[in-house]
Amino acid sequence: MKANIIGVGSTTFSEHWHYGLREMISYASLNALKSANIELKDVDSLFVANCLGSTINGQNNINAICSDELAIQNSVAIGGGDAAGAYAIAQAANSIMAGQSKIALVIGVEKMSDMPITDITQIASEVTEQEYEASTGATLASLYAMITLKHMKLYGTTDKQLGSVSIKNHSNAVENEIAQFRFKVMMEDIAKSPMIADPIRLLHSAAPSDGCCALIMCNEGSAKEYKDKIQLAGTGIGADFMAVHEREDITTFNSVRSASKSALANAGIKVEDISFAEVHDSFSIGEIISIEDISFTKKGNGGKFIEEGNAELDGKIPINPSGGLKGCGHPFAATGIRQAIEAFYQLNNKAGKRQVKNPKYALTENISGTGATAVVNIYSL
Amino acid sequence: MKANIIGVGSTTFSEHWHYGLREMISYASLNALKSANIELKDVDSLFVANCLGSTINGQNNINAICSDELAIQNSVAIGGGDAAGAYAIAQAANSIMAGQSKIALVIGVEKMSDMPITDITQIASEVTEQEYEASTGATLASLYAMITLKHMKLYGTTDKQLGSVSIKNHSNAVENEIAQFRFKVMMEDIAKSPMIADPIRLLHSAAPSDGCCALIMCNEGSAKEYKDKIQLAGTGIGADFMAVHEREDITTFNSVRSASKSALANAGIKVEDISFAEVHDSFSIGEIISIEDISFTKKGNGGKFIEEGNAELDGKIPINPSGGLKGCGHPFAATGIRQAIEAFYQLNNKAGKRQVKNPKYALTENISGTGATAVVNIYSL
Repeated sequence: MKANIIGVGSTTFSEHWHYGLREMISYASLNALKSANIELKDVDSLFVANCLGSTINGQNNINAICSDELAIQNSVAIGGGDAAGAYAIAQAANSIMAGQSKIALVIGVEKMSDMPITDITQIASEVTEQEYEASTGATLASLYAMITLKHMKLYGTTDKQLGSVSIKNHSNAVENEIAQFRFKVMMEDIAKSPMIADPIRLLHSAAPSDGCCALIMCNEGSAKEYKDKIQLAGTGIGADFMAVHEREDITTFNSVRSASKSALANAGIKVEDISFAEVHDSFSIGEIISIEDISFTKKGNGGKFIEEGNAELDGKIPINPSGGLKGCGHPFAATGIRQAIEAFYQLNNKAGKRQVKNPKYALTENISGTGATAVVNIYSL
Repeated sequence: MKANIIGVGSTTFSEHWHYGLREMISYASLNALKSANIELKDVDSLFVANCLGSTINGQNNINAICSDELAIQNSVAIGGGDAAGAYAIAQAANSIMAGQSKIALVIGVEKMSDMPITDITQIASEVTEQEYEASTGATLASLYAMITLKHMKLYGTTDKQLGSVSIKNHSNAVENEIAQFRFKVMMEDIAKSPMIADPIRLLHSAAPSDGCCALIMCNEGSAKEYKDKIQLAGTGIGADFMAVHEREDITTFNSVRSASKSALANAGIKVEDISFAEVHDSFSIGEIISIEDISFTKKGNGGKFIEEGNAELDGKIPINPSGGLKGCGHPFAATGIRQAIEAFYQLNNKAGKRQVKNPKYALTENISGTGATAVVNIYSL
């Protein structure tokens, strides 16, 4: 028995100066309920993913906020760094499969504009290893920069290939109403954008964002009553050494390998069956390594694969049709839920101008830190 | 099909200056494995509860730390304020009941000694409502003080009755090897202890602590192979208005009422069937209100009930035989797991000098903030 998603809702990803956590939670949740055509009283459990609430918003009891705001008794908070959203979906699915929940509301929320970007950079590094990485001053960007340089050295990955990830994702985001960065970028824009951590430039990086996404989930039987739905066909969770320096090969995300392998086995399909994927491009190199480690292409070929257009909407395997983290923005715990929302729209053929042709299986990959953990969820109709 | 606990392990609750999160996690986990006589490789999933890691320890990816330290791929972080421990048990149980996990390791960890107590007081208030409570300077102690005063006014609850909670729990803690405060206190010690927030004194309050507790859980069938085990007979989760000022009656924890009602229904038993309980005495009034709202005694009678000895080890319904939060210390997310460990020892008749006579059902109650949410777990042999 599999869990299904029968409704989705979201705020835009933006700088929501005039909204707090409560307002964003309500907005996304009520929209998800509306989308499924059900009422709040039908929901019997709530799973909320949040990562930075305590450090940025001074709020360290996020499920209590949701319960208070939405009058739902049974709520729980799910963590897991910036992969928290995908984790929450997996936990809600467990609850449904265990028969402990009939209709679950799953929320991912992050409000990152409450602090200046310099503080965010430091706070975000808390998802990396504290004792050996964050405390030395290493940031997510600086660690990803090392990974990028090594990938360039080992496989000849180029600046232009990194740029092609950003160009594609910005282009896809233009058609996504949730996305924060709905404009195209050109190779020269990227080359002129500020250097963050050599060779990573601003336009190779996903920006912190405010966003809240929500899903309604139920069991297979109940889902039959609903028009638009997708099934969570399989989940895989993987882990790697947390600190980059401990990994045998820093250009490989073992967490992603393990998670995608488990998810495919769990869904009973092969990687060739996947129609499109939403992957974790917090930095351009993230998308390149992800598609290698999921095995959409062979190790070292990720940059070339994207540069040659294979990951475009009409390519061999569309990657990040939503615009990805780069085009949508990256409100940490909301990202994993946003990926599921994209799967919902695409598989129901409701993705408008960014619609992928006749998708059968969607794969979403949400990772924490620099690949410390990864959650891969596979969806089908 | 119910989930079972087949092994337990714990650090002592203390100021562990010489250990970090990693060392505490390993120590408790390996002890739990030893207790169940299984190996790390047998564990297929890990659930870790932590509340204050990001604000106190600068570590916002606690399940990645656990996965790294213990080489377990499938891990997830569970929040829920200072009730996170009990939440994690419920999530692990879902995973087992859903058939997604065969042997789960459930960890609750908190390391609070990394910051001075004045900072802890402010940080701990982040589990209350940020916008209307914490940001005004209200602390957990000051909010509980209001609740205490109102309970005194409405029901005639006395200083002496508050003190009798602390006396009992300190007395029980003497026999508990985990406990941080293994010494008896007398009524005059309490009266002489510093005033924290009138009428709450130091010896009415549970101290912040460093601690890590771990459990091994599996399904009913597999549990048969193990000698010592308990079953999670039922779980209930409840919520109330988060901010104290929004509640109709601040001397009632609606979250506890709702959670205990659900848990009893889920277990198919009545409150009279409970042999003993571990409740959330972060402040003495918390134990008094909890036993009222679980219905061990009628509303307003909690102080008298305890003062008259009904909650002693040989009383009508022993409350906090472990020593409770007062005697053991309160490392936030570890507390809910510690309560389950007490249930494990007591139900298997291995609680030594604090053994309750022939217990059949144990009830544990773990609450977040000032009762914003509550998790009640019921255990049986």
